[in-house]
Amino acid sequence: MKPIRAAIFGGSGYGGSELIRILLFHPAVELALVTANEHAGKRVADVHRNLLGLTDLSFESAAEDISSLSNVDIAFFALPHGQALNLIPQLPKGVKAIDLSGDFRIDDADIFKRFYKNERHALQSEFVYGLTETNREAIRSARYVANPGCFATATLLALAPITASGLVTGKIVVDAKTGSSGSGAKAAANTHHPQRSNSFYAYKPFQHQHVPEIEQHLGALTDVRNELVFMTHSLPVSRGIFASCYLETTNNLTNEDVENMYRKYYEGSFFVRLVDGSPDINWVKNTNFCDIAAHSNGRQIVVFSAIDNLVKGAAGQAVQNMNLMFAIEEKTGLVFAGGNP
Amino acid sequence: MKPIRAAIFGGSGYGGSELIRILLFHPAVELALVTANEHAGKRVADVHRNLLGLTDLSFESAAEDISSLSNVDIAFFALPHGQALNLIPQLPKGVKAIDLSGDFRIDDADIFKRFYKNERHALQSEFVYGLTETNREAIRSARYVANPGCFATATLLALAPITASGLVTGKIVVDAKTGSSGSGAKAAANTHHPQRSNSFYAYKPFQHQHVPEIEQHLGALTDVRNELVFMTHSLPVSRGIFASCYLETTNNLTNEDVENMYRKYYEGSFFVRLVDGSPDINWVKNTNFCDIAAHSNGRQIVVFSAIDNLVKGAAGQAVQNMNLMFAIEEKTGLVFAGGNP
Amino acid sequence: MKPIRAAIFGGSGYGGSELIRILLFHPAVELALVTANEHAGKRVADVHRNLLGLTDLSFESAAEDISSLSNVDIAFFALPHGQALNLIPQLPKGVKAIDLSGDFRIDDADIFKRFYKNERHALQSEFVYGLTETNREAIRSARYVANPGCFATATLLALAPITASGLVTGKIVVDAKTGSSGSGAKAAANTHHPQRSNSFYAYKPFQHQHVPEIEQHLGALTDVRNELVFMTHSLPVSRGIFASCYLETTNNLTNEDVENMYRKYYEGSFFVRLVDGSPDINWVKNTNFCDIAAHSNGRQIVVFSAIDNLVKGAAGQAVQNMNLMFAIEEKTGLVFAGGNP
Amino acid sequence: MKPIRAAIFGGSGYGGSELIRILLFHPAVELALVTANEHAGKRVADVHRNLLGLTDLSFESAAEDISSLSNVDIAFFALPHGQALNLIPQLPKGVKAIDLSGDFRIDDADIFKRFYKNERHALQSEFVYGLTETNREAIRSARYVANPGCFATATLLALAPITASGLVTGKIVVDAKTGSSGSGAKAAANTHHPQRSNSFYAYKPFQHQHVPEIEQHLGALTDVRNELVFMTHSLPVSRGIFASCYLETTNNLTNEDVENMYRKYYEGSFFVRLVDGSPDINWVKNTNFCDIAAHSNGRQIVVFSAIDNLVKGAAGQAVQNMNLMFAIEEKTGLVFAGGNP
Repeated sequence: MKPIRAAIFGGSGYGGSELIRILLFHPAVELALVTANEHAGKRVADVHRNLLGLTDLSFESAAEDISSLSNVDIAFFALPHGQALNLIPQLPKGVKAIDLSGDFRIDDADIFKRFYKNERHALQSEFVYGLTETNREAIRSARYVANPGCFATATLLALAPITASGLVTGKIVVDAKTGSSGSGAKAAANTHHPQRSNSFYAYKPFQHQHVPEIEQHLGALTDVRNELVFMTHSLPVSRGIFASCYLETTNNLTNEDVENMYRKYYEGSFFVRLVDGSPDINWVKNTNFCDIAAHSNGRQIVVFSAIDNLVKGAAGQAVQNMNLMFAIEEKTGLVFAGGNP
Repeated sequence: MKPIRAAIFGGSGYGGSELIRILLFHPAVELALVTANEHAGKRVADVHRNLLGLTDLSFESAAEDISSLSNVDIAFFALPHGQALNLIPQLPKGVKAIDLSGDFRIDDADIFKRFYKNERHALQSEFVYGLTETNREAIRSARYVANPGCFATATLLALAPITASGLVTGKIVVDAKTGSSGSGAKAAANTHHPQRSNSFYAYKPFQHQHVPEIEQHLGALTDVRNELVFMTHSLPVSRGIFASCYLETTNNLTNEDVENMYRKYYEGSFFVRLVDGSPDINWVKNTNFCDIAAHSNGRQIVVFSAIDNLVKGAAGQAVQNMNLMFAIEEKTGLVFAGGNP
Repeated sequence: MKPIRAAIFGGSGYGGSELIRILLFHPAVELALVTANEHAGKRVADVHRNLLGLTDLSFESAAEDISSLSNVDIAFFALPHGQALNLIPQLPKGVKAIDLSGDFRIDDADIFKRFYKNERHALQSEFVYGLTETNREAIRSARYVANPGCFATATLLALAPITASGLVTGKIVVDAKTGSSGSGAKAAANTHHPQRSNSFYAYKPFQHQHVPEIEQHLGALTDVRNELVFMTHSLPVSRGIFASCYLETTNNLTNEDVENMYRKYYEGSFFVRLVDGSPDINWVKNTNFCDIAAHSNGRQIVVFSAIDNLVKGAAGQAVQNMNLMFAIEEKTGLVFAGGNP
Repeated sequence: MKPIRAAIFGGSGYGGSELIRILLFHPAVELALVTANEHAGKRVADVHRNLLGLTDLSFESAAEDISSLSNVDIAFFALPHGQALNLIPQLPKGVKAIDLSGDFRIDDADIFKRFYKNERHALQSEFVYGLTETNREAIRSARYVANPGCFATATLLALAPITASGLVTGKIVVDAKTGSSGSGAKAAANTHHPQRSNSFYAYKPFQHQHVPEIEQHLGALTDVRNELVFMTHSLPVSRGIFASCYLETTNNLTNEDVENMYRKYYEGSFFVRLVDGSPDINWVKNTNFCDIAAHSNGRQIVVFSAIDNLVKGAAGQAVQNMNLMFAIEEKTGLVFAGGNP
């Protein structure tokens, strides 16, 4: 079989780095091009030293104009917000695209402008939201996929089954926590090791840019509009997102009711694992799994979810979506376990 | 001035260890006795190696009968749950007591039995709940103080001002996180370093023993009865508790309204610091401070609080209460800063 | 091709856990049996939660007598020291064995007795020491392999090229550091998270049981007998061993001389990567790589090496040896990268 | 008694921050001035949030010309290398100075130029090296003190007793490890939390600028000139330095001989604690203690030392020296324990 030829725009960040790693070992993919302007000419393995001995690829600089990009079947964009907005529309016909930034996640022009300070692109209507487990069919036939943010992935996978049931009443509170790799590969004050290593704190109360993304997609799952209180916190670990979701139901539900609801919803979803008690970021690190546990106290429900922010929350889910777009087995290249411990 | 002579029952755990450290440097206290049955005869500094060079004290074993305990003005009990229940009633008249366990925190006999599997003691009615900032006057004249749990301290200090306002409507959600020292000084599976160091998880959903303690004390602050959803999580750090509290108000409140409410409530409370943005466990570690930030989105309110679980959440608050009980300046022996970073 | 049928004795520890993980994905292996007496009957994935969704295997209890073990081509022993000593001699003819404990690493009966408190087994002479890169040919034809300890692996791979050159004079100092997973999966005082997470300390000065293992194998590489000062330290991370090796040469050597010597020695050794500056345990974690850097100051030489103690230091190297013993490509099932970061 | 009036030049870094913290609680000191050009006008506690509620001081900008600095008894310089070189010579007569940088640690002009790229200042001859325990008498009468670097402090305190004995033969190997706060308060690639939190690596092999500082001071302790191999490594913790020192003696020494030698040398040195087995950075963190353990294997000796790099390795030792310079009790303001755990 002819391999899928893939390009990665933005290979120097953590998302890009993980994309390279996963695609290097993907049996159906050939990595044709990896760009990183500040590292152009350097060997990929000299920047991402985990890849030493595993690839001879070098970074290239991205062309200003990518309209003549040839011999590529799919392009991944792992660039800072605002850049894919200009690049993806240039792609020649026949090249599919998956964007890992927020550039094409928001349908509403006003909301997009408010949170991302940019004009929504006309191409927005052709983008499918890439939360694989809730959107498989649309993704299969999509040319363009907007890959979900890491917070949105953890939150939406936790909420989807019960939201879709229509039984949720009142507001939903999501207390979300992220590891430091979520802040990217560039050193900054909030990821300075001496401070971060013994810290835990909240940030951006009532103003996180992931809120509209989550609200839009929750809205697609149900007719009920529940108010969402979403709060982000910083964990002193490198990898992992953990979301604790609090909600109330119109009917009394037993623990068993809730478990059955989740089990049914995720039947056939290999990468969602329903666990007892609580998930733990330790058990999903370096994997594409999302572990979920749901508990009921009658009408009060809590749902916990844990993912690796760079895999299921970014590169892994992007590849999962690529698999669907090219009609190959959804889990191809993604079946690996994290270590114990 | 004659020093206050203090005894510590249970000096081998982390709470007892921190009590020793604080009392050793307290200008008005003389440490008369420290018990630790499994370490009886050993020098304190050979067990708590941070104290090497700072004390010649040795651990003693606790007498079965402490009714003849003499030459002691106050006894601290830092024992596993269930032990102080038998010991404190034996104390000779004239010896005050502060219990750091849960043995005397719950007034209701049925609730106590359900959560602590013991009969409430007749002495319960003479115990004052030692959340210093909300209960100062009662503590000053108390003979017996039940020192709050660490989760309860962080949660109640976050909620007290707005709860006392009577403006809270609907349920309160508290998403609480604790460091590993909260599990005590004995090695256990959940604090095994290889697992814990990259982990984050929830535990005991809908069944934590701190819930009745928090509910009882919230009830003492207001006539309104709000449902409490309280969830505990484990952080991969040694010290620190962080509570994120979500609630709704009957009136619209601006950020400024909320800040003023908190500023007024904690006027004169040296150990509560109101901060911008978010508190961080990094800035309160090794101190008796509770840092708090409150934010409003109109009617949705979030309050964050951070403490050191072993100081403000245990030993430090116990000493703060002792100071009040002996009519000395509340902050004596407790004015120290944590390091930066 | 008929798969290699493998058994693992001792599947509950970290070494066994990683063996299961690696063998589950090994294209030429079928996992026939995994024992763990205390977990017999439980699903592997309920104990090693990283494997949830990836295997339906259950733990079995080990038979007292394994002399009738059938339908198995190779047995791995990941048991506490002293157990394989009794089990391996029972294996039926035709079953190969790789022992991950120290039971068959020491040739000298007296030294073995002194360090391991057991009698050397008569089978010792049939065991090949499984440091793959230095012992390939012997391993290929071995029936029994004694897999090296994690400290020995990091140290010997760092020292082998220069020791084999015969140019080392005087004593060799090795300052070795290990992550907490090296202490095993059972909770203990030295791996209690509150203590370990901000700690660094040495242990067992001048008495570590890895010394004779290292000395014996160094002796096999050269005629010169250099005194070895080997010191172990504990790192506050979960995974990784780092060895800093200090030695002196008879001739002046430039940095280039040393690099060439190492490059030549490890030509064709896929899993040894020579790096600039210093290796970092971060770049080898979860992989079978050993990263090495060597520097000269004329006659003073320092060599740094880094491995993942559970992979190249245990399970990964065991599988590498198995590959050789079954005449399949040495790196089969072991070509995976760790994540970045 | 009139307080000692102190100024701190460079109060924004970690060294300056710890100086402020310690001096704020020092019973004999009044903090007269703290400079930090980039934070001039800001409250100290808004930058160093551990100090919130504990001081109303604000940062000032440093004058270009400090020759008219008045009403100050001592000035501490916690500035980047190269700045104190120009400032200290301007100080008016009667103002003592302690420099925490490397500007005045090296006596030899050529060596200073090679390692610090600056001309040695004429004032160098008036500087006393501030390793308190080995240099007390000179410090008492000094006007200017060059405070030792953190690596030099840990190494020299470990080596001083046995070096002074004249029994050391051959080369000395020092394998030194530091926490991330040693790299300062500014975010940088090597202290980026996602990378650093699971890392351990060596840096600057055979070229660390602390080597001449250590060699010079070792030379002052003995007539023997031993070659020094000194290697620096990075630990994934915030605070702490650990040095493992390997050396050989001319005579056979028992463990007891070595212990007695150390005990005698440090008699009367409150801040050096001799411990069994190994020191641990966990037990010295946030304190001015240096914990040391020495072991002999006959003629091979290993000495381990642990300090907090920001306290005994910087601010604490500076205050210890100030105490001597003002003829007050050496430990004033420095007797505090770190927490357990």
